Amino acid sequence: MGGDFGPRCIIPAIARCLSTHPGLKVILVGSSESMHEQVTHYPLPQDRIRWVPATEIILADDSPASVLRHKRDASMRVAIEQVRDGVADGCLSAGNTGALMVLARSILGTLEGIERPAIMAALPVSGKACHVLDMGANVDCSATQLFEFAVMASETVRETTGLARPRVGLLNIGREVHKGGKVVRDVSDMLRRCPALNYVGHIEGDGLFRDEADVVVCDGFVGNVVLKASEGLALYLQSELKQALAANRWLRLMSPLLRSALKPFGERHDPARYNGASLLGLNGVVVKSHGAANQLAFETAIERAMIACRAGLPKRIAHKLAECRLQL
Amino acid sequence: MGGDFGPRCIIPAIARCLSTHPGLKVILVGSSESMHEQVTHYPLPQDRIRWVPATEIILADDSPASVLRHKRDASMRVAIEQVRDGVADGCLSAGNTGALMVLARSILGTLEGIERPAIMAALPVSGKACHVLDMGANVDCSATQLFEFAVMASETVRETTGLARPRVGLLNIGREVHKGGKVVRDVSDMLRRCPALNYVGHIEGDGLFRDEADVVVCDGFVGNVVLKASEGLALYLQSELKQALAANRWLRLMSPLLRSALKPFGERHDPARYNGASLLGLNGVVVKSHGAANQLAFETAIERAMIACRAGLPKRIAHKLAECRLQL
Repeated sequence: MGGDFGPRCIIPAIARCLSTHPGLKVILVGSSESMHEQVTHYPLPQDRIRWVPATEIILADDSPASVLRHKRDASMRVAIEQVRDGVADGCLSAGNTGALMVLARSILGTLEGIERPAIMAALPVSGKACHVLDMGANVDCSATQLFEFAVMASETVRETTGLARPRVGLLNIGREVHKGGKVVRDVSDMLRRCPALNYVGHIEGDGLFRDEADVVVCDGFVGNVVLKASEGLALYLQSELKQALAANRWLRLMSPLLRSALKPFGERHDPARYNGASLLGLNGVVVKSHGAANQLAFETAIERAMIACRAGLPKRIAHKLAECRLQL
Repeated sequence: MGGDFGPRCIIPAIARCLSTHPGLKVILVGSSESMHEQVTHYPLPQDRIRWVPATEIILADDSPASVLRHKRDASMRVAIEQVRDGVADGCLSAGNTGALMVLARSILGTLEGIERPAIMAALPVSGKACHVLDMGANVDCSATQLFEFAVMASETVRETTGLARPRVGLLNIGREVHKGGKVVRDVSDMLRRCPALNYVGHIEGDGLFRDEADVVVCDGFVGNVVLKASEGLALYLQSELKQALAANRWLRLMSPLLRSALKPFGERHDPARYNGASLLGLNGVVVKSHGAANQLAFETAIERAMIACRAGLPKRIAHKLAECRLQL
C-alpha cells in the first residue's frame, strides 16, 4: 500500500467502497503496523477484508530493472502475485509506475498476440473522459503496437463506460493524411481498414481538448509529455489566476461567492474523479493510482479496477484483438 | 501577405512599427489590390516602404512538395527571394508553415554544418518566454540534430533577449539520467559535454510551466503536439471558466470588476505578445507569424524579425555551432 499519503488515505477509501459495493472484497498487502493504526479509526467488515503481509516496499526511484531482481517481498510484487494465483481478481497500486509495469508483465504475462502492454489514463474534457495511451511504458512504438493500443483502449472504454462505439483518434501533427512519420501513416492505414473500430482519423494536440475522440493513441513518450504538460499547465494557470484575483481587494472579499460559483467547474475537472490508469494487455487487471491521490481519487481507482474485473476485461481485449486482426 | 486577416491587420501593424522604429524599412510582397485598399487608411512613409508584386498565393492545404515545383510567383517565394538577393535582411510570413520551411530551405539554404533547420516558438510562463523547438519541421530527429537545435536556440535566445546564459533543457519522460529512448540519452550526453551551453538536464512536461528552462529541446512531433495541446487546453479552460462565471447572476453583474482584475493575467499570457516563431539554421532570417495573428501579434513578430536581423543571427549561430562542436 503506497502512494504519497499511504494507508491514511487508502483505508477510508476502502471503507467507503466496501459500504457502497456489497459485492466487493479487499485484500490489503503491506506492512501490518502501518495498516493497523488506521484500521482502528475505520472499522472494516472483517469477513470482506484480508491481510497479506509484505516486508519490503518499492521506492519511487528504484529502477524497474532492479525491482525485478531484488525486493522479492515487496508489497507491489506480492499484490500482483495474488492476481496470478487467482486469489484476487485485480490489483491496484499507487506506487512506482515503471516498477508496476515491469512486475506485472513478468508475473502475469502479456495477453496472447500482444507485443507490449500499455498504460491508459484519462483527461477530463467537457464533463467526459478523453482516454490517452500509451502514457510512458513504451517510448518507441511500431505501427503494430499502436494498432494494438487502439484496439485495447477501444474495448476497455466500451466495456467500462458503456459507450457503444468509442471514437478512436491517432495523435498527429496535422489532420491531413500525408502528415506525420512513417509509423503514424502505417497505423492510420491499419485503423482505417478495421471496421470493428470507430476510427475518426488524426487528432492534433488541441483536439484533445475539443472532444474529438474518446480514445487517443500515441507512443509513450508523446503521451507522457502531453499528460504531464496538461497537468502542469492547469496547475500553473490555477495558481496565476488565484494570484490575480487575490491582488484585488474587492474580489478578495467576494472569494466565498467566487468559490461557490466555480465549484461545478472544479468538480467537472477534479483529477480525483479521473484517477486510475489502466495497464492494458496483461493477463489480469492492474490499475495504477496517482501517487498523490486523495480519498476520493482512491475510491475512483478502486471502482475502475472493480468494473474492469467484472467485465473480465483481459479476455474481452484478447477476443477483440483477434477479431480486429482478421479485418486487416 | 497572408494570415487569416490579411492586409487589414498587417498594414496597421507595419504603420505602427515604422513610427516606433525609425531605422525600419519594409518591403511588402503580394497582390497590389489587397494592399492598396488598406494603405489609403494607413498612410505609410513612401521612402521607407517598397512594393513587390506577386500574383500567386500559397494556400493552407498546399503540400510543401507541390509549392516547390509550382506557384513560382507566390508571394511567400518572392519574399524569401528578397532575402536571398540581399534586398531584404529578413522575411516574415503568416502563411503555411510547411511551405515556408521548404521554400526557405530551398531558396536560402541551410547554414554550413546544420543537418536540418528547426522552428522555435515561445510559451508564456511566469511573465517570461519558455522557448520550445522543434515545433513540427522535423518529425524524427537524430541526437546530432537535437544537439544542433539546442545550440541554435541557446544562441538565438542569448542574442535576442539579453539572457547571458539561457538554461537549456531536454524534454523527457523523467528527470533521471536513464529515462527516455536512446536518442534522448545520446543528446543528453552531448549537451553535458558542452560547457558553452548552460544545460540543466531533463525537463518533464509539467516542467515547461515551472520555469525550469529558457530553451526546451524536443523533436518536431512532440513539440508540435505539446504546443497545440497547451493552446487547446488554455482555450478550453478559458471557455469553461467563462461559462461557470456566467451561470452565476451575481458574478454576471460583477463581470466588469472581474475583467479588470484579470487584465494583468490576460496581458501576461496574451499569445499576441509571444507571436513569431523563428526558423533557425537557415542562411537568412525567417520568422513565421501565427495565421490568426491580430495587429499586436504582427507588431511582435515584426520586432522579433528586426532584432534577429540586427543581431546578424545566422552568422552568430554558425559561429556558436562551430565552438560547441569543438567541445564535443
